[in-house]
Amino acid sequence: MSNQGQIIVLSGPPGAGKSTIAERVRAEMPELAYSVSLTTRDPRPGEVDGKDYHFVSQEEFQRRIAAGEMAEYEEIFGNLYGTSEKVIRQALAQGHDLFLDTDVNGAEQLKKRFPEGVFVFLLPPSPKILEERLRGRGTEEEDNLRQRLDRVRYEVGKAGNYTHLVVNDDLDKAVDEVKAIITAARRRTERHQQLLAEFLAL
Amino acid sequence: MSNQGQIIVLSGPPGAGKSTIAERVRAEMPELAYSVSLTTRDPRPGEVDGKDYHFVSQEEFQRRIAAGEMAEYEEIFGNLYGTSEKVIRQALAQGHDLFLDTDVNGAEQLKKRFPEGVFVFLLPPSPKILEERLRGRGTEEEDNLRQRLDRVRYEVGKAGNYTHLVVNDDLDKAVDEVKAIITAARRRTERHQQLLAEFLAL
Repeated sequence: MSNQGQIIVLSGPPGAGKSTIAERVRAEMPELAYSVSLTTRDPRPGEVDGKDYHFVSQEEFQRRIAAGEMAEYEEIFGNLYGTSEKVIRQALAQGHDLFLDTDVNGAEQLKKRFPEGVFVFLLPPSPKILEERLRGRGTEEEDNLRQRLDRVRYEVGKAGNYTHLVVNDDLDKAVDEVKAIITAARRRTERHQQLLAEFLAL
Repeated sequence: MSNQGQIIVLSGPPGAGKSTIAERVRAEMPELAYSVSLTTRDPRPGEVDGKDYHFVSQEEFQRRIAAGEMAEYEEIFGNLYGTSEKVIRQALAQGHDLFLDTDVNGAEQLKKRFPEGVFVFLLPPSPKILEERLRGRGTEEEDNLRQRLDRVRYEVGKAGNYTHLVVNDDLDKAVDEVKAIITAARRRTERHQQLLAEFLAL
């Protein structure tokens, strides 16, 4: 309650444009906090520990999972990636809104720990346009496309975890809608109890 | 559920700028539906029945209250003003969002019938600025000012009925925030079940 911040989580299946939209929202709302992810993979040339990622060992990451310290994590090509719950809670306690993009499994884990958060699910305009977009990448073979569509269906099946749904039929419009959802979340009455108390003391 | 519209209710104590903001929001979001109020007062020159108000008799209005047909109503200087629940439900069923500005009592009645609605409470930036605004009207005597402040306290005491709170410290910003709240409400996941079903059928 009171003047806590909120987490804002953005997800979307392949072809929905999640990375582009996340980048634009971060650029246009620089006041949004973000959390540096932990990973067990090796740093790539130029990556800075504590800025791009916190690079930790498999043992350290596993210890944190066992201790319940990870708000969400996933394995990609044998490497673990995740977000520390403590880092999130600290940002929120300082009144910052924290913006994360994760896949549907990450969002599902976050939803359990932050049920009051804002969860935005992105979609392409229609199944037909999605197929065109995925095909349009050119390199796709039919099997590959089938796999991607299976993945879309799997992700859409998790849309019930999300509070909001944005259709990316126009990039500018989709960015504006995600920003509107964040703005609206900031205006929730429970975040302004202090101001209300000042008026009641008139 | 499904593709129903929502009601959006705007209230705010004297000095918060409700009328100006409501007018701007209506002008900038012409797709918002509105409901013509019923009233028992006499038409003024130029007012058109069914457009400015539905002008009805005291008996007719009382009959509708008794029949539970009024979503909200209030008495002002001996005249009744109110909104028909049926008219609201029809607009929502057609997928329209319906925008209403009412006082806190009207909003409280609407909240009971439309608990899933969006309720926006406007505030001036601070108690100090509110006093200045009310004094600034010039015609206020001290007693009158005291009465208005009492009214503000009464209205702020009802802010818990509202889902969102917007501070009118800058008119353009306040208008944009109300519009963002409406945009966000339209993106709620439960309003897009049909689109999700299309993707699940991929």
